[in-house]
Amino acid sequence: MDFSSFVTSLATSFVIFLILMLLFTWLSRRPGNNVVYYPNRILRKLDPHEGSHSSRSPFAWIREALASTEADVIRASGVDSAVYFVFLTTVLGIFVLSGLVLLPVLLPVAATAHGSLQANATSKDSFNDLDRLSMAHIEQKSNRLWAFLAAVYWVSIITCYLLWKAYNHVSHLRAAALMSPEVKDEQFAVVVRDIPSTTDARSRKEQVDSYFKAIYPDTFYRSMVVTNNKEANKIHQELEGFKKKLAHAEAVYSESRTTSNPEGVKPTTKTGFLGLIGKKVDALDYYDEKIKELTVKLESEQARTLKDKQQSAAVIFFNNRVTAAAASQSLHDAIVDKWTVMAAPESREILWSNLAMNYYARLVRRYAIYFLVFLTIFFYMIPIAFISAVTTLRNLIKYLPFLKPVVKVAAIKTILEAYLPQLALIIFLALLPKFLLFLSKAEGIVSESHAQRAASGKYFYFNVLNVFIGITLGSALFDSFKEILNDPKSIPELLGRSLPRSATFFLTFVALKFFVSYGLELSRIVPLIIFHLKKKYLCKTVAEEIEAWAPGDLGYATRIPADMLIVMIVFCYSVIAPLIIPFGVVYFGLGWLVLRNQVLKVYVPSYETYGRMWPHIFVRVMASLVVFQLTMLGYFGTKEFSYTPILIPLPILSVIFAVFCTNKFYRFFKFTALDVACRELKEAPAMDGVFRSFIPPCLVSDKTTAAAVADEEQFDDALSQVSRAGSFVV
Amino acid sequence: MDFSSFVTSLATSFVIFLILMLLFTWLSRRPGNNVVYYPNRILRKLDPHEGSHSSRSPFAWIREALASTEADVIRASGVDSAVYFVFLTTVLGIFVLSGLVLLPVLLPVAATAHGSLQANATSKDSFNDLDRLSMAHIEQKSNRLWAFLAAVYWVSIITCYLLWKAYNHVSHLRAAALMSPEVKDEQFAVVVRDIPSTTDARSRKEQVDSYFKAIYPDTFYRSMVVTNNKEANKIHQELEGFKKKLAHAEAVYSESRTTSNPEGVKPTTKTGFLGLIGKKVDALDYYDEKIKELTVKLESEQARTLKDKQQSAAVIFFNNRVTAAAASQSLHDAIVDKWTVMAAPESREILWSNLAMNYYARLVRRYAIYFLVFLTIFFYMIPIAFISAVTTLRNLIKYLPFLKPVVKVAAIKTILEAYLPQLALIIFLALLPKFLLFLSKAEGIVSESHAQRAASGKYFYFNVLNVFIGITLGSALFDSFKEILNDPKSIPELLGRSLPRSATFFLTFVALKFFVSYGLELSRIVPLIIFHLKKKYLCKTVAEEIEAWAPGDLGYATRIPADMLIVMIVFCYSVIAPLIIPFGVVYFGLGWLVLRNQVLKVYVPSYETYGRMWPHIFVRVMASLVVFQLTMLGYFGTKEFSYTPILIPLPILSVIFAVFCTNKFYRFFKFTALDVACRELKEAPAMDGVFRSFIPPCLVSDKTTAAAVADEEQFDDALSQVSRAGSFVV
Repeated sequence: MDFSSFVTSLATSFVIFLILMLLFTWLSRRPGNNVVYYPNRILRKLDPHEGSHSSRSPFAWIREALASTEADVIRASGVDSAVYFVFLTTVLGIFVLSGLVLLPVLLPVAATAHGSLQANATSKDSFNDLDRLSMAHIEQKSNRLWAFLAAVYWVSIITCYLLWKAYNHVSHLRAAALMSPEVKDEQFAVVVRDIPSTTDARSRKEQVDSYFKAIYPDTFYRSMVVTNNKEANKIHQELEGFKKKLAHAEAVYSESRTTSNPEGVKPTTKTGFLGLIGKKVDALDYYDEKIKELTVKLESEQARTLKDKQQSAAVIFFNNRVTAAAASQSLHDAIVDKWTVMAAPESREILWSNLAMNYYARLVRRYAIYFLVFLTIFFYMIPIAFISAVTTLRNLIKYLPFLKPVVKVAAIKTILEAYLPQLALIIFLALLPKFLLFLSKAEGIVSESHAQRAASGKYFYFNVLNVFIGITLGSALFDSFKEILNDPKSIPELLGRSLPRSATFFLTFVALKFFVSYGLELSRIVPLIIFHLKKKYLCKTVAEEIEAWAPGDLGYATRIPADMLIVMIVFCYSVIAPLIIPFGVVYFGLGWLVLRNQVLKVYVPSYETYGRMWPHIFVRVMASLVVFQLTMLGYFGTKEFSYTPILIPLPILSVIFAVFCTNKFYRFFKFTALDVACRELKEAPAMDGVFRSFIPPCLVSDKTTAAAVADEEQFDDALSQVSRAGSFVV
Repeated sequence: MDFSSFVTSLATSFVIFLILMLLFTWLSRRPGNNVVYYPNRILRKLDPHEGSHSSRSPFAWIREALASTEADVIRASGVDSAVYFVFLTTVLGIFVLSGLVLLPVLLPVAATAHGSLQANATSKDSFNDLDRLSMAHIEQKSNRLWAFLAAVYWVSIITCYLLWKAYNHVSHLRAAALMSPEVKDEQFAVVVRDIPSTTDARSRKEQVDSYFKAIYPDTFYRSMVVTNNKEANKIHQELEGFKKKLAHAEAVYSESRTTSNPEGVKPTTKTGFLGLIGKKVDALDYYDEKIKELTVKLESEQARTLKDKQQSAAVIFFNNRVTAAAASQSLHDAIVDKWTVMAAPESREILWSNLAMNYYARLVRRYAIYFLVFLTIFFYMIPIAFISAVTTLRNLIKYLPFLKPVVKVAAIKTILEAYLPQLALIIFLALLPKFLLFLSKAEGIVSESHAQRAASGKYFYFNVLNVFIGITLGSALFDSFKEILNDPKSIPELLGRSLPRSATFFLTFVALKFFVSYGLELSRIVPLIIFHLKKKYLCKTVAEEIEAWAPGDLGYATRIPADMLIVMIVFCYSVIAPLIIPFGVVYFGLGWLVLRNQVLKVYVPSYETYGRMWPHIFVRVMASLVVFQLTMLGYFGTKEFSYTPILIPLPILSVIFAVFCTNKFYRFFKFTALDVACRELKEAPAMDGVFRSFIPPCLVSDKTTAAAVADEEQFDDALSQVSRAGSFVV
């Protein structure tokens, strides 16, 4: 890539971003789009435009984002979002401080070097203006390399210092949130798994109660045995579906009635598959009947579930936070694989079906899945190649003959033939995060947030190994695999040799990434279109409309690995080609602005973990730093610089620093410290409400009839506890 | 070593053992020696010979040892001893089951092989009858190697199975002991370290109390801030010394009076160094005066210590076991390096001076000491060589001229010149365990038992690396170090190549070890002589006599590494030279018998950890197994057996098994499970007694005067708690 095409690509990206931003300014002012651009504020029952004056310049949102405080973010979107901003700020700080020193020092040093460009120039093809500004321009054994060596130290020190401050800050954020005097239901509960089967006649419920009453005679409140809700859930969802359909049909009917025809057209439906086949019936009557039928069915299923489908897990409620916090950290049974207790996640993010999974099943699944992920990451090219081979045009025509006339057109044929393999790759890459999330959930993880973190970790490996290292080495990792396996010590050298070649590619990559993806993020073009289409053609009721603009959350499982990839790229090139630093600064600066806007106005978190994501982020930033340091070791080696060993302590010290921080802070992110849990509450917790918040939706009954009675039945004897639960101890 | 010298050495060892055993039979029957051979029974106030009839054959002790049950051992010597016997039994079982299969199968297979002996014969020198029975006798690529390959699998399976059963059993032993309805003081306490310094005017005591009262409003009983007792301890010891001396002088005086001289000779002493120089004074008056003086001094020092020397650690007492168990496992402060809480060890084994050590000091010290131990293990030859160089005869004469006439004698000169280097080595080896224990304590470990485990772990590395691998490779590890570092994969092959050469050496080593060391152990010749010498010349009072026969404990810090060395040797040779298995069986069988006798009648444990030593043992047996498997991989490689890769899964599976067992059982050895802690107590604990049991001896005052008042003073406000501590909850 020569200089002009580099500038062209940069300019194109920038123009796209400008257009998207103007589009955003224009679209977001229209009140009809409020639900797309301000859903968070609307759901919090705030005026979307409050605080922003009529003089809305295209940059008003920037001013608002900059003016917002961390407390605003926590109020609007919880601690997790605030922690994500700590991450963005920290990385931004690292890049700015690195850039302030590296750019004015290294660029002149490189530009004025006398060395002719060697084979390992930063551009894959030929001489390049950008290469003059990179370390590749320095001749071997030059004394100028000292400046680059010092730069590696500077970047490392800055990173560790800012990460240290950030870890401290996040730790305080978490403590402050957990100390809050508001009653948080999950702080009073623990989850117990691997309950051993009883031989005597006692029910699960009695067994659990007697076990915990013996240990916590004063603070045990009540238990809820986890049930197998598969059947009940199915019926519940069916029922909800019909309820929605009924509302929809009613809306359609009343709509048709108000106009010319006062009688209206009674909507009809068919009883078969998806309402497309089968007997034609009156929709209102049909849905009504179905709902009645399913309600009865659900009630009996609920009763049956609560009674007969109790599983080997339970949620235990305590009447104070300290006991729950202590219980979640304590070994309950002498054998670790029985009565394993852990802190309860928020009820909305519990993966109920995983709770009852056996200790050994979890163990086996976890390792099986690690192995599967390993295969996916290292050999992902194989299935894609296989799919490409199968989906040749000839096969396509054979299996889908109706495509024949289309494919016959020469132009389409050419395009299809050229793009089919890429299409397979794109589809694979699009499905990968979902696949990884699915795998993480299959591990037997208890909460959605933990599963997202696990998926994010897996995706990080894929990104680093295949995108970063893969592109750098100019081949799929698999090809270099044998070489690496034979001599593991060669990785730094291999990377050092290959890195400079890809510098320009990654410069463009980062630029494209921030302009286009943050442009799309801010303008919300896709959700906007989808919302308007749905509203126009599908939505009839208010509930349906709300569903159409439901904003979703930040999606950490894909967002964090994507950011991490940029962190790793910028780190690794920061000293080799310091020009990448401003790009990193813009990526995280723009990201900060755009996401601040999105978090305050758009996204609604689907769970709250009080920053448990942070250690995950921390470890990965540190890993990127260590990869950078090792790479530099390799690259300085290729420059035959005799003082290269001065870099050896760096990765060692970095690892020590990471271990030290983890030792010092991590346990608090895993558990709740008792000192934090013992703070006064604003009011005595309504234990019944806490308990009810954990009942899965499919087991809640609207009417206080059968299901409610059955529900009480499960907790029969425990109910006697409620009376004495009046004496709360915090 | 040829066959006849092997038999001779074996026979000599056996004869020594027989003599020692007969000596034991004869000596132990004499009532005057009861305190040497039955101190445990005497201290438990039992008749030494109870249960054993007058017809004491030389083998009576064997019958008694065999008849004793595990419950007897626990009663006589605690759970730790019982766990040590589980270890002995398990290893014995492994060797017996291995031998039952390996000896009848492998010996004929080896003996009938047609292969001429190759260079790597089992004897270092020449052809050897023993080599006929070893794997070295099998020719390369022979199908007979299949039998040896199967044997490796058999030994591994047996080991894992028996270790699994043992882990389960020990886990139950521990649970049963911890569940016991007896009040155990330490179960009501936790130790808290790293108390942050307060800025306000509150005392340490107030700070600690308010912190724990907030978290445990109902169950917190009282706290005891750890003080710097150095000064008080010194005075206390001085005082105790003078008390002993006074009793001794009184005894001497009364002895002299009863005989011819009715007035008696008043004993005198000198006031200077060790009573050897200075003014001559009347001993009784002098000691009396000193005691009075020191008592006053101690009392004022105690008051000062309790008031002004409070440190950043404390012992916290709860009025029930569950809270203490839960507290010891819970994170108290959001930052891990503050308010770190751990279960309290028994008060008699707390290393008080380590309690106040700072988190960072501990961290730095631990790694510094690991590094030091690494140096000691790898380069221990260097200081010894240095010492040998310095302690040549010439230097000796130069610095210690009075030795000159002795050294002049030709015979002595020769011996000294020959043995000085060896002497240095022997002294080093004798001091090493003490040095390692000293280092382990310097790490900042809180309890004696933990320090012993840490020292035992370090000694294990020394034994394995220097004695086993060192002797096998025929050189100090340091020499092979470079070779190994260049190609770490070569270790198994290197070992495989070298092992057979040392087989006979290790056979003799094991035999010598069990006959001589267990003979000495049983006969207690050395303690017997020391006791009689002391009694005759030094002891005048009953207290002095009791001190003279105080039996000590089993001394795990050196005993376990020594056993482990034998385990490792027998494992590694079990398949190569199966003849070693009977030796291993005798070692552990004889050890079981002799130590059973010692534990029931002699040793008195100095602490009780309820089997916390077991995971330590387990990991090391598994490590020995894995070393064995890797060695066999290497040795089969040298035999060019093409099915060698069949062995590759073995070490992998072994590691998985070890990790699995650790996951399943280990946490209970680190913490007390709440289910175990919640069992009913026989009686409500006398909390004041529990509290007082933790007061260090130097702070206890005999008279209830100044010190007692000061003692109360420290707990001034806490005393108000005592009144309401009447309502115990377990």
